[in-house]
Amino acid sequence: MKIDLNSDLGESFGRYKLGLDEEVMKYITSANIACGWHAGDPLVMRNTVRLAKDMNVEVGAHPGYPDLMGFGRRYMSLTREEAKNYILYQIGALYAFVRAEGLTLQHVKPHGALYNALVRDEELTRGVLEGIADFDKNIIFVGLSLSKPLEIAEEMGLKVAHEVFADRAYNPDGTLVSRRKSGAVIHNKEEIAERVISMVKDGGVKAINGEWVELKADTICVHGDNPKAVEITAYIRKRLEDEGIKIVAMKELMR
Amino acid sequence: MKIDLNSDLGESFGRYKLGLDEEVMKYITSANIACGWHAGDPLVMRNTVRLAKDMNVEVGAHPGYPDLMGFGRRYMSLTREEAKNYILYQIGALYAFVRAEGLTLQHVKPHGALYNALVRDEELTRGVLEGIADFDKNIIFVGLSLSKPLEIAEEMGLKVAHEVFADRAYNPDGTLVSRRKSGAVIHNKEEIAERVISMVKDGGVKAINGEWVELKADTICVHGDNPKAVEITAYIRKRLEDEGIKIVAMKELMR
Amino acid sequence: MKIDLNSDLGESFGRYKLGLDEEVMKYITSANIACGWHAGDPLVMRNTVRLAKDMNVEVGAHPGYPDLMGFGRRYMSLTREEAKNYILYQIGALYAFVRAEGLTLQHVKPHGALYNALVRDEELTRGVLEGIADFDKNIIFVGLSLSKPLEIAEEMGLKVAHEVFADRAYNPDGTLVSRRKSGAVIHNKEEIAERVISMVKDGGVKAINGEWVELKADTICVHGDNPKAVEITAYIRKRLEDEGIKIVAMKELMR
Amino acid sequence: MKIDLNSDLGESFGRYKLGLDEEVMKYITSANIACGWHAGDPLVMRNTVRLAKDMNVEVGAHPGYPDLMGFGRRYMSLTREEAKNYILYQIGALYAFVRAEGLTLQHVKPHGALYNALVRDEELTRGVLEGIADFDKNIIFVGLSLSKPLEIAEEMGLKVAHEVFADRAYNPDGTLVSRRKSGAVIHNKEEIAERVISMVKDGGVKAINGEWVELKADTICVHGDNPKAVEITAYIRKRLEDEGIKIVAMKELMR
Repeated sequence: MKIDLNSDLGESFGRYKLGLDEEVMKYITSANIACGWHAGDPLVMRNTVRLAKDMNVEVGAHPGYPDLMGFGRRYMSLTREEAKNYILYQIGALYAFVRAEGLTLQHVKPHGALYNALVRDEELTRGVLEGIADFDKNIIFVGLSLSKPLEIAEEMGLKVAHEVFADRAYNPDGTLVSRRKSGAVIHNKEEIAERVISMVKDGGVKAINGEWVELKADTICVHGDNPKAVEITAYIRKRLEDEGIKIVAMKELMR
Repeated sequence: MKIDLNSDLGESFGRYKLGLDEEVMKYITSANIACGWHAGDPLVMRNTVRLAKDMNVEVGAHPGYPDLMGFGRRYMSLTREEAKNYILYQIGALYAFVRAEGLTLQHVKPHGALYNALVRDEELTRGVLEGIADFDKNIIFVGLSLSKPLEIAEEMGLKVAHEVFADRAYNPDGTLVSRRKSGAVIHNKEEIAERVISMVKDGGVKAINGEWVELKADTICVHGDNPKAVEITAYIRKRLEDEGIKIVAMKELMR
Repeated sequence: MKIDLNSDLGESFGRYKLGLDEEVMKYITSANIACGWHAGDPLVMRNTVRLAKDMNVEVGAHPGYPDLMGFGRRYMSLTREEAKNYILYQIGALYAFVRAEGLTLQHVKPHGALYNALVRDEELTRGVLEGIADFDKNIIFVGLSLSKPLEIAEEMGLKVAHEVFADRAYNPDGTLVSRRKSGAVIHNKEEIAERVISMVKDGGVKAINGEWVELKADTICVHGDNPKAVEITAYIRKRLEDEGIKIVAMKELMR
Repeated sequence: MKIDLNSDLGESFGRYKLGLDEEVMKYITSANIACGWHAGDPLVMRNTVRLAKDMNVEVGAHPGYPDLMGFGRRYMSLTREEAKNYILYQIGALYAFVRAEGLTLQHVKPHGALYNALVRDEELTRGVLEGIADFDKNIIFVGLSLSKPLEIAEEMGLKVAHEVFADRAYNPDGTLVSRRKSGAVIHNKEEIAERVISMVKDGGVKAINGEWVELKADTICVHGDNPKAVEITAYIRKRLEDEGIKIVAMKELMR
C-alpha cells in the first residue's frame, strides 16, 4: 500500500512570508507551488522549487484565480477559454523554474476557489484540463476524490490523482463540509490520523452525519501553515508508516 | 545578404486593444510577444502565438518590468536575482503557449526601459542573461547592436542577434537618441529605408551629428502600432528585397 | 419634464486608450468615472475630472471589481465587508481628483458585473450602500430602474437615481436581456430614441416579448466607445429636447 | 519640550499579515497607514484607521510606488505629473476611511524608495507636494530632517514635520547610512534611546564617522514589525518621558 502526501507551498509574496515550507517539506512527497497569481512570486517560486529539489520532493503547479488580494479563495466567473489559457500561463511560469533546476513537472492541482468550482462547472473543468493537456499529457491532474473532473480528465487521456483531505469533514456525497459550518475542520491529531488510515486502507471514512463515504486516496492534502500543522503532518506520516503504508510521490503510484 | 525583421506584438490587454498585429505580421520574420507584465494577457498571448504560427513568423519572448500602468517604459531598480527570475517567469509563461501550439521559442528581447537599462548595468544584464541561459541556451538574445550585453551573452555561450532600429536616430556612440530630443524619431519612409539599407549593406549609418556610426545588423526593429507604421514596415521590406537582401528569421542567420 | 444622461468615462489605462470621452462629454450631464480597479489610472482620472469640469458635466464614481484583466465584467464573490470597503477605497480615490479640481462628487454607479450582481444579492447591495453612506449620505446612488437596491438605498436614507438603458432590450421583469441573447442590444438610432422617449414620457417600454414593462427614468445610460455610439448619443439628446424634455444633471432632479 | 512618535502601519495585505500594529499603537502618536499600492488593502486600511481611532493615535497617509511585489522599496522613475496624481489617488483612498471613521487626515509621509528619492529629485518632490497641496494645504508633510523637500514644502505653504530615525546611523550630511553598509542599523536599545534624546534635546547626533550632525526633530520614526521592535519603541518612549519630553501628535507641535 502506497500513498502520496501533498501540501500547498511557495505561498509567500515579496516581503510577505507565509508557511513553514522548510519544515513541512520534510514530511511530504509532492509540493503544490503557487504560480504568482493568487500567491507566490518569481523569487519565491525559484526558492521553493530549489528547496523541493534539495529535499527530494516532487513538484507540481498550483494555479489559481488572478486574485492576490483574495488569495484565490473567492469565486470568479471564467469562460472555458480563459480557464484554459490562465492555467497554461501559470504552468509555464512554474515550469521555467522547474526546468532551470533540472526537474520535471509532476502534477497540477488547481487552488482554492478554482479547485472547488470545478466540481460544479463542467465547462470550467474542461478549460482547466485542456490547459494541462495542451502543455503536457503526462502531467498528473489532482482533483477531489471520485469527483466528476477526474472522470473527465481520464476520458481526455490525462493521468489523475484522487485527493483526500486529512483534516476536513466530508458530506455524505463526498464533498467537503464548508469551512463556515461547525465541525468542518478536525483538530485532534489522533482523529485525523485514524481518518486518514481509514481512507487509505478501507477506501472511505465517516461523513459528518455518520454515514459512510467511499473515497479513493492517491494523495492526502496536509498543511504547513503553522507549527501545529507541521506537527500534525509529521504525526500522520508516522502513523501511516506504522501501518505499513509506503509514502511515495504520486508519480510512483502511476506505474 | 540576409536580415531579420522583428516587431513588438501581443501588447493588447483584456478589453484594451493595441497594435495592428494581423497587418504587421505579414511583413516580419520574428515576433516579440509581451508576457503579461508590462502588456499582454494569457488570451492575447495565445492568440498572438497562433497568429504567428499561421503566418509563419518565428516567436520570441518580450519580457518587461512588472509595470502595466507604465507599459514597462519606466526605469525600475532590480537586483540581479530579481532580473534573472523575472525573466524566467515570463519566458516560461510564453513558452507554455508556444509549446501548446507546437512551436519553439526562437529568441528573447527585453522590453522598453529594461532593454535600455541593460546597456549601462552589467549586474542587471547578467541577471537577464542567466534567466535565458537557465531556461535554454539555444534561445537567441536580442540586444542593441554592438553593445556590451551582447558581448557578455556571447561569453556566456548564448547566441545573440544585433538589433538596429529603423526609425530612430543614433548617437555617435551607437546608442539611440532619447525620444525626448527633437529628431529622435524619423518619419519619412524613404529616409528610413535608406538608413536601413545602409545599416545592412554598409555596416553603419550617419549619427545625429553627422558622424558615421558602425552597426552590426542581424535584425531590424519595425512597428505596427498604427496604419502609417505598417505602411513603413511594408515599404522597408520591399526596399530591402529590391536590394537583393533576403528577409529571413533570425535563427536562419545563425546557421 | 427632465432627464439626466450618464455615460461611463475615464476607462483608459496607461498606454491603453478607450472611449471618445471628449466627444461624448458634449452631450451628457453626468460622467461615471472609473476608479482604477477595473479601468482608469490616476492620470486618466485627473484628466477626465478636468474634462468634465471644463464641459460642465457632473462627476460620479464608477467603482468596480478588482479585475483589470476582465474589465470588471466577471462576477466575483465578495463579502459585505469587502464590498463596503472596496467601494469606499474607490470613492475616496476619485474624490481626491474631484476635490483637487474644486468640484463635488454627485453620484456613485457600480460598474459592470458588480452593478448586475446587486440585483440578486442583498448582502452585497448593503455592503455597497454602506460604503457610499460611510463617505457621504448626499451622494446619489444610481441603480437599475425600480430594482431592489434602490429601495434599500432609500430605506437607508440615501438619494437614488433610477437608471434606464437606451440601447438595451428589457425582460418583462425589468431586468436587461443578457448580451448573450440575440436582440439584447438595439442598434437603430430611431428605435433607440423612441424607446427612450417612451421610458421618460410614458414610464415604460415594450419588453422583448412584447409585454409592457414599467420603468422609472431619472437617468439614461448612453455610450461613447466609438463614433457610432457618440452619434446615437447626440441623436437621443436632440430627440429628447425636441419633445420638450430638459436634459439636466441628476442632482437637479433631486431638488 | 515635545516630540511625536510615528510608525508605518497597516502593511498587511489580504491573507498576509505584517506588523504588530495593535502593540506598537500603544506607544506612538502618529500612524502612517499604507494606501494599497506598496502594501495595505481596503479591509486593512479600514481596520488600521479604526484601531488608531480607538487608541487615540493621529492618522496619516503613507503612499508609495505602485510595486506590491517590491514593497515600494525599489526606485522607479516617475514624472512630476505621475507623482502628483499617484499621491492624490492614495491620499484620497485613505481619506475615505478616515472620513468614514469621523477623523481627519493629519499628515502624509511618502514610503520607502519614494521617500528616499525625494532628497535627490526636485521634480519628483514638487510632484508629491503638489499632490498633497491639491488635496488639502493643512496636511503636514513629513520628510527627512533638514532636507530640501521640507524647504520646498514650506515655500509652497505646506506645514512640515522634520523626521529623525531612532535606529539608523547618519552620514555627516544628514542622510541615512545605506542599509547595505555595516553599522547602518543600531540594535542596542540604550544606545537608540540616548541618540534619540540627543536629537531632541541637543538638536543633533554623532554621525557614523564621529562628526556631529545637526538635526531638527519634530517626529521620530519607530518600528513595530516584531516583538523586539515594539520593546525598543516602548523603551524609547519611557526614556523620553523620563527626560521630561512630552510625547504628542505632530499636529500639536504646529500650534
